[in-house]
Amino acid sequence: MIRGRVKGQIWSSKHVDKLPKGGYLEVEVESGENIIAYDPLGCAVGEAVLLTQGSVAAGYFTEFKAPIDSLIIGSIDEKE
Amino acid sequence: MIRGRVKGQIWSSKHVDKLPKGGYLEVEVESGENIIAYDPLGCAVGEAVLLTQGSVAAGYFTEFKAPIDSLIIGSIDEKE
Amino acid sequence: MIRGRVKGQIWSSKHVDKLPKGGYLEVEVESGENIIAYDPLGCAVGEAVLLTQGSVAAGYFTEFKAPIDSLIIGSIDEKE
Amino acid sequence: MIRGRVKGQIWSSKHVDKLPKGGYLEVEVESGENIIAYDPLGCAVGEAVLLTQGSVAAGYFTEFKAPIDSLIIGSIDEKE
Amino acid sequence: MIRGRVKGQIWSSKHVDKLPKGGYLEVEVESGENIIAYDPLGCAVGEAVLLTQGSVAAGYFTEFKAPIDSLIIGSIDEKE
Repeated sequence: MIRGRVKGQIWSSKHVDKLPKGGYLEVEVESGENIIAYDPLGCAVGEAVLLTQGSVAAGYFTEFKAPIDSLIIGSIDEKE
Repeated sequence: MIRGRVKGQIWSSKHVDKLPKGGYLEVEVESGENIIAYDPLGCAVGEAVLLTQGSVAAGYFTEFKAPIDSLIIGSIDEKE
Repeated sequence: MIRGRVKGQIWSSKHVDKLPKGGYLEVEVESGENIIAYDPLGCAVGEAVLLTQGSVAAGYFTEFKAPIDSLIIGSIDEKE
Repeated sequence: MIRGRVKGQIWSSKHVDKLPKGGYLEVEVESGENIIAYDPLGCAVGEAVLLTQGSVAAGYFTEFKAPIDSLIIGSIDEKE
Repeated sequence: MIRGRVKGQIWSSKHVDKLPKGGYLEVEVESGENIIAYDPLGCAVGEAVLLTQGSVAAGYFTEFKAPIDSLIIGSIDEKE
């Protein structure tokens, strides 16, 4: 997995039918690259998150075959 | 997923039999790299799109095993 | 596989239900990038480890479909 | 998919049994990196080609499980 | 696939149970990165090899699910 920080949400009015409903967050990873990940946890902007990628991300959806290759699987605990 | 912007279409007269019919768009992603993605949505040049990659992209095709590793799954809403 | 060196552990109090229990280690790989990998071996900070990635990592979990795309599969023997 | 240009052919006298017979072409992609891809189309040196990668490439082989992670799926039409 | 050159062997005394027995070679690829690959062919240091990666590499092992994401599938013939 890789760590990233939530930058914001994106919306897509025009999309394929199989796209799961829910939040799609733009996440900046350590390399500076931005990943758009499905968020099943309701993460906030600025939150540090753990991302899983590839077919492993799609495997999270068990009722149908979702075209999702990036998934937030957790929020990383940070020292306050 | 990653975001990209449609640059144009490509054509391939000589191809493997299993290639799905439809549009193949050249999409520039944030790193500056170009990805050729299958487009089930009819996107236009200049449109911001959401790309899924790997076996997840191929999983979109359910009637046969398509050799497609990049798929446009949505158009990203942009402020006007 | 790629080699890496364990930098520390991360914790995630808020996570998806399917996350396997156990240690999640931050591992620095040769490119300087950090990977968060599931550790079934109990590796220590500073240890040189062998990482496998992608759906192969998830395949390690046979009882349920784990959203894990990075797995430590061994500790690399180093000359002392 | 990514686009590339054929640089030449490679040969491997010593190989695993499961390697499909046919042409293995060295293809330079836009990043400057070279990929060795299986070529079911008989492409020539200098030809612009479309490459698919990962398990999607292996899925092209239906009679046996081929250890192929890069496949030429088409020749890209170029203006003359 | 990508080409690489064998640099040496690595050993792992402490490893997961499912690790296949055999040689694990450190291979330098064209980008300068090092990959640790399973070697079913008995390649020597300095030999030019062809690497396959991802779940395709794991698919080589048919008797059990091996956590192997990099596999040497051939030795590349070089002019002498």
